[in-house]
Amino acid sequence: MTADTLSLEDTMRRLGLRARAAADALAQAPTEAKNRALTEAAREIRAQAAEIAAANAADVADATAKGVSGALLDRLTLDAARIEAMAAGLEAVAALPDPVGRSLARWSRPNGLDIERVAVPLGVIGIIFESRPNVAADAGALCLKSGNAAILRGGSESHRSVRAIHRALAVGIKAAGLPEDAIQAIPTTDRAAVGILLTMDDTVDVIVPRGGKGLIERVSRESRIPVFKHLDGINHTYIHSGADAAMARAVTLNAKMRRTGVCGATETVLVDRAALGSHLPGVLDALIGAGCAVRGDAEVRALDPRVAPASDADWDTEYLDAIVSVKAVAGLDEAVAHIAAHGSHHTDAIVTGDAAAAEAFLNAVDSAIVLVNASTQFADGGEFGMGAEIGISTGRFHARGPVGLEQLTSYKYKVRGTGQTRP
Amino acid sequence: MTADTLSLEDTMRRLGLRARAAADALAQAPTEAKNRALTEAAREIRAQAAEIAAANAADVADATAKGVSGALLDRLTLDAARIEAMAAGLEAVAALPDPVGRSLARWSRPNGLDIERVAVPLGVIGIIFESRPNVAADAGALCLKSGNAAILRGGSESHRSVRAIHRALAVGIKAAGLPEDAIQAIPTTDRAAVGILLTMDDTVDVIVPRGGKGLIERVSRESRIPVFKHLDGINHTYIHSGADAAMARAVTLNAKMRRTGVCGATETVLVDRAALGSHLPGVLDALIGAGCAVRGDAEVRALDPRVAPASDADWDTEYLDAIVSVKAVAGLDEAVAHIAAHGSHHTDAIVTGDAAAAEAFLNAVDSAIVLVNASTQFADGGEFGMGAEIGISTGRFHARGPVGLEQLTSYKYKVRGTGQTRP
Repeated sequence: MTADTLSLEDTMRRLGLRARAAADALAQAPTEAKNRALTEAAREIRAQAAEIAAANAADVADATAKGVSGALLDRLTLDAARIEAMAAGLEAVAALPDPVGRSLARWSRPNGLDIERVAVPLGVIGIIFESRPNVAADAGALCLKSGNAAILRGGSESHRSVRAIHRALAVGIKAAGLPEDAIQAIPTTDRAAVGILLTMDDTVDVIVPRGGKGLIERVSRESRIPVFKHLDGINHTYIHSGADAAMARAVTLNAKMRRTGVCGATETVLVDRAALGSHLPGVLDALIGAGCAVRGDAEVRALDPRVAPASDADWDTEYLDAIVSVKAVAGLDEAVAHIAAHGSHHTDAIVTGDAAAAEAFLNAVDSAIVLVNASTQFADGGEFGMGAEIGISTGRFHARGPVGLEQLTSYKYKVRGTGQTRP
Repeated sequence: MTADTLSLEDTMRRLGLRARAAADALAQAPTEAKNRALTEAAREIRAQAAEIAAANAADVADATAKGVSGALLDRLTLDAARIEAMAAGLEAVAALPDPVGRSLARWSRPNGLDIERVAVPLGVIGIIFESRPNVAADAGALCLKSGNAAILRGGSESHRSVRAIHRALAVGIKAAGLPEDAIQAIPTTDRAAVGILLTMDDTVDVIVPRGGKGLIERVSRESRIPVFKHLDGINHTYIHSGADAAMARAVTLNAKMRRTGVCGATETVLVDRAALGSHLPGVLDALIGAGCAVRGDAEVRALDPRVAPASDADWDTEYLDAIVSVKAVAGLDEAVAHIAAHGSHHTDAIVTGDAAAAEAFLNAVDSAIVLVNASTQFADGGEFGMGAEIGISTGRFHARGPVGLEQLTSYKYKVRGTGQTRP
């Protein structure tokens, strides 16, 4: 039976078994081999830049013919700068410390047993992504460096681009003497392949969905495999009465407007009633001056006629756009309660000069990232010093917040004895 | 509408919402309050010992009338010693360090941001268990101490016992001023309640199944919530040619026969061909002398006529009984390959005096716990110094191996700045 005549189910199961075998070998691979694979892959991406661009041009032409919109088309497009960024990204991951084999804890027991917790790879990671083909290189590199085998599944509109990128990665992997199945791309655009992948809990250990809400919800619903979930980022910046007014203005403007489409962008500003007159006008001037539409409650609107009325739905909306909702609160407790009721446990910030209020906010707000006197746009693995991230987890299981190399590992216990038996 | 007229679905959803509210309060509860709840609950369990015993007697009588078997009946029965053990267990958990609020890591960024990773509770934990009613106290205590709200669901045959234990826990929780919903028991024996619980991913963060393979497989299949899985313990003790013969004998005997029904028990012994004549006779004498039935391959049988033939299925069987399979291998590589092919990634050991072989085995065997010169029966949170465990995870996501208080936490990032904005 040739590959062509295998059923999709068989094709996927075989892919899983090959990934599992590759993962077993990768778990033992020396750091130097993994780094060599990454730097050779970077070299190959640069060498194959014309071929990758041509494959991408064919994908873009198809998408254009289908009437695909501007933003999606932009995400799909790989220009020379983006191809170089992929290569540089591979080199950056090669330069990061190897997360495998780290000794996470070690202690001795009264009976003399020496117990050590050591980081090991998770195993096989399924990456399901949408239009950005560069995710193949970025996510594949993080998996490889953390000793995990990867199964890549890009959007059907980017399949030629993903295949071209995958070919370059494979050259690097082979050059380093690592198993070629370390990074596999699902060889079909059949949508049913994703459904099968999500049931392969005998060979796949974790699923990473990278894309819009629809994709993540489908994956969460169907998967029998643990998922690094990334849901909404309904983030708040809370201007406490003890805030420095200039800092409140600068931090809030950055949190909302630096980039409005990222998950760390602030969507709602809360302001202490006591700071309405002193702090908010400057903040509103800055936001509106930068082109942001402001929707506020009655107290905020009374302050500035440019503010439109906010509806109840505004407090629960992730705009991902140059829109912000603004609400007056009585103080810290009401701010915390509003965030608990309307936030998404992603990233929230307080601006304050009051150290006690800062610590109270850090403790009381149950979000992956809670900041004091800093922009919510710092919600990013690179900004945290992790070098790169495969995403930000809004779940609480295994990893929360930026998912970098360390978060792509599990652990095992090494127990060293001298003949101990249990009484 | 009274509770009686609520549909099961409504009842369960309300239970989940109450648990979520309790979890928010518990996350902020001081260590002293949690400890007080546990010690007061211990006091109440002792004070209510007669009532708990009476409730249990009614459960036991029902089960007996239904013709329930000896082992299950034993697990169901709470005698005075087991009731006292529950009380002492609550006090032991009170004495453990609080895992919430631990600073797990802290670093500064070049821009001056101070980033701290701090342990927080997971949230709401659903505990689904079978016949042992004492799990209600043991698991409830671990959840409470780690700041998590618990929803308990015992087997229908133990519902009176669980209700009585839950009443005592509630008295302790109330005495400490903590939310009464911190530990709830599902108020119905309707089996459909479990199915509903497993879909409540808006209010429940983690599911812990405690029971047989059937329960764990059902939970894994149906759950939309992350599960602490505990599958088979097909564990190996490998006698390397460099082993001390007396140590091999003592460690193997203990690993197999100390208790045969625990998940850390050894099920297969692998022996280097070079050690067959020197090491195996003493091991076989010890095992057979202790009442263990031995099944071996041809080489092992040639050595001792008391050894029965092993079938292919034996290498994949978790006996949980006084039966062991024994196989000769060429050396470390074949032992590791056998464990990879037939083991369950739970707990495996090597006996050897060769330090290089020991480290090679520790690195190459992909199990939650890998031991050198020690009994596999040490696979236990208490033996690891964790104080108590809610189970042993054979999954790789979030926690692997014994799940104690620390493994019942997630984390968040506290980021302290001085007005930083992101370029």
